Amino acid sequence: MEGIEKVESKECYMAGYARDGLPSSDHLKIRTVTLSLDLDSIPDDHVAIQSLWISVDPYLRSRMTGIAEDGLNVSQFPINQAIGSYGAGKIIRSKSEKYKEGDIVICPEMPIAEYSIVPTKAVAIKVDPAFGVDPVDYLSVLGVPGFAAWIGIEVIGKAKEGENVFISAAAGGVGMVAGQLAKLKGCYVVGSCGSDDKVKLLKEEFGYDEVINYKKEPDLDAALTKYFPNGIDIYFENVGGKTLEAVLNHVNGFARIPLCGMISQYNKVWTEREGVRNLLNMVGKEVHMQGFMLRSYMNRFVDFITEMGGYLKDKKITSKLKINKGIESFPESLASLFTSSNIGKVVIEV
Amino acid sequence: MEGIEKVESKECYMAGYARDGLPSSDHLKIRTVTLSLDLDSIPDDHVAIQSLWISVDPYLRSRMTGIAEDGLNVSQFPINQAIGSYGAGKIIRSKSEKYKEGDIVICPEMPIAEYSIVPTKAVAIKVDPAFGVDPVDYLSVLGVPGFAAWIGIEVIGKAKEGENVFISAAAGGVGMVAGQLAKLKGCYVVGSCGSDDKVKLLKEEFGYDEVINYKKEPDLDAALTKYFPNGIDIYFENVGGKTLEAVLNHVNGFARIPLCGMISQYNKVWTEREGVRNLLNMVGKEVHMQGFMLRSYMNRFVDFITEMGGYLKDKKITSKLKINKGIESFPESLASLFTSSNIGKVVIEV
Repeated sequence: MEGIEKVESKECYMAGYARDGLPSSDHLKIRTVTLSLDLDSIPDDHVAIQSLWISVDPYLRSRMTGIAEDGLNVSQFPINQAIGSYGAGKIIRSKSEKYKEGDIVICPEMPIAEYSIVPTKAVAIKVDPAFGVDPVDYLSVLGVPGFAAWIGIEVIGKAKEGENVFISAAAGGVGMVAGQLAKLKGCYVVGSCGSDDKVKLLKEEFGYDEVINYKKEPDLDAALTKYFPNGIDIYFENVGGKTLEAVLNHVNGFARIPLCGMISQYNKVWTEREGVRNLLNMVGKEVHMQGFMLRSYMNRFVDFITEMGGYLKDKKITSKLKINKGIESFPESLASLFTSSNIGKVVIEV
Repeated sequence: MEGIEKVESKECYMAGYARDGLPSSDHLKIRTVTLSLDLDSIPDDHVAIQSLWISVDPYLRSRMTGIAEDGLNVSQFPINQAIGSYGAGKIIRSKSEKYKEGDIVICPEMPIAEYSIVPTKAVAIKVDPAFGVDPVDYLSVLGVPGFAAWIGIEVIGKAKEGENVFISAAAGGVGMVAGQLAKLKGCYVVGSCGSDDKVKLLKEEFGYDEVINYKKEPDLDAALTKYFPNGIDIYFENVGGKTLEAVLNHVNGFARIPLCGMISQYNKVWTEREGVRNLLNMVGKEVHMQGFMLRSYMNRFVDFITEMGGYLKDKKITSKLKINKGIESFPESLASLFTSSNIGKVVIEV
C-alpha cells in the first residue's frame, strides 16, 4: 500500500434501526467511501487498518434495534456510520509508536469496512507470528466466541469431571468451543442444533456425546428425558425462551446456568418474548443463573489466552469456520445466525 | 403432665392433595387421636412433646400438591398422617439421655398436633433460657424466616452500604426481617405489600425507606421507576411472576436476586404460572439469580444465630407476630399467607 494516498473503501453502515425481525436492506446498507491514507491527514495516535477478517456474532443484532437499555444492554450503532465488529486487520499507516506498518492486529470494534482509521486504543492485541496461531483463530477459538465459552464453562459453570452439560446452539461459534471445553474437563456433553449436518459435525469433530436436532425432536422435554437420565448440572444458555423452560424441568440440585445469550429472543421486543413459567424450580433445585458480558472478565483474558492457546496448539480444540467473502456479505452473514443456516463460526474474509 | 398416661391430641392431617388453588377442608382435616404417654409405650430414643408454638410458612403449600419434583422440590406430606411444620414444644416424656422433662425444644418438622411422640433426631435445638430469647422468636427472627432473610441478604445478596434493595412480600415473616437486615447494612430499602396497615408497620417499626402498596400502585413498573431512580442492586424474591418481570426492567449491573420463594405461583401448576419474558436483561446487566433452600446452609446456622441473636438482644431487630390459637386454626392460617390478610409472621399458639 506504500505510496498510495487514497483508497476506495466499501463499508456497511446503519441506515435505520430494526426494532424487531431481521434487519433488511432498509437498515443495513453498503456504500463506498474514499479514505485518505496521506500520513498528514491521519491524526496522532491513530492507525490506518486494512481489514482481513471480520467476526459476525449474534449480539450485533441487539445493537441495531434503536432501543436503549434493552436485553443485552449494548450501545446502539449510530445512524449513518459504519457499524463495527471484532476483527483482524493489517496496519497500513501508523501515527503510533506502538504499531508499525505490516503489524497484524485485533480490534474489538473494527469498522465493517475494507479500510479504516482508528485510534490506537481501539487495538487490543498485536498478533505475534511466533505464537503460531492463524490470525483468524483470534476471531474464533481465541476470540469473542472462545472467550465466552471459557467464561461460561469454567468461570461460571465450574465444570467438574463427570458432570452433565447441555449446550444449545451447539454448532455456533460459542457452542462448538463450549462443548469441546466441557469434554476436556471430563463432562458428559449433549448439544442441540438444527440440522443433521451439524449433528454429524458435533459428534464427529467436536466429540459431543449426544446431539439433539431440535427440528427432528421438537419435544425438547422428551429429548432431555432421554439424553439426561441423571439430570443436567450445567446448561450453557445461548437460545432462551422455550429451551430454557424445558431445561429448568431437568436441572439437578445446584445446577449452574451461565447466560451467554438468547438468540431466539433477539428479534422480538421484550413484551413479545417467550415467558419462562417454571423459574420456581430454581428455588427447590437451588439453581445459580448468571448473565455475563465479556467486558467484565477482561482481567481473566490472559488466563484464557494461555489455556486456550495451549489447547489450540496441541490440537485438543479445533474449530469450524463459515467464511463469507467481502463486506457486502455482512447483512446475509448476520441473518444466517438466526436462521440456523450456518455451521460453525461465521467470519467475513475481506 | 406427670402421672397422666393418655392424652387426647388434636391434629391436622392431610386428607387429600390440592393440585392447585388453596387447600380446603377436603384436603386439610382436623381430628382427635388418643396418645399413650406411658413410658413403656414410647420407643427408645424418642420423646413426647407438648406443642407450644407452630410456624406457618408458605412453603408448606408446596408439600400438599401431590406433585413430586415440582417447584420447591420438597417432599409431599403422606396422606392420612398429621402434617408437620417448624415448631417449639415442651418435653413431657423422654426416652433419651439428651433431653429431660420440661426442656423447651425446637423441631424443624414437629407434627401439627397438640401432642406428639418424635425420635430424638427430630429435635434440632434445646432452648437455653439463659440466652434470654423467647421460644417463639425461634420461629421468627431466629427461625425459618430469619434464617432465610439472612441467607438472602448477606450470603447471596452480599448487601453493601449504599446499595438499593427491593423486597417483595415485605410484611411477611421473611420480608420484615430481610428489610431490617438490609437497613442494618446501610442500604436504601423499599418493600412491597398489600395493605396500608402493612405500609405503616414497615415504615414505622421496621425502618423501610419507602413501601409500595401494590393494590394502590398496580403499575409496578411505574412504582419502581419512582422509588428506584438509581436502579435495583438486590431484589429479595418472595413473590415471582409479574413482580420479578417488573424488577428485571430496573436492575443495575451485577444485581443479585436471591430466590427465597414465589408465593404468587404456589397455587398453580407450572404450565399455568406466569412466564417471565425479559430474562434476556439478565445477560446485559450480568444479573446473578440464585435459588436457595435453608437445608443447604446449615453450616452457617451458628453464624446466623450469633449475629441475629445479637441484633435481637440489642433490639436492633424486632418482629411482628400474627398469633392464631389452636391446631384447628392451621388451615385458615395457611390460607391467610396467600390472601395477604396477615401482617407479620404467622404462628399458632397451641
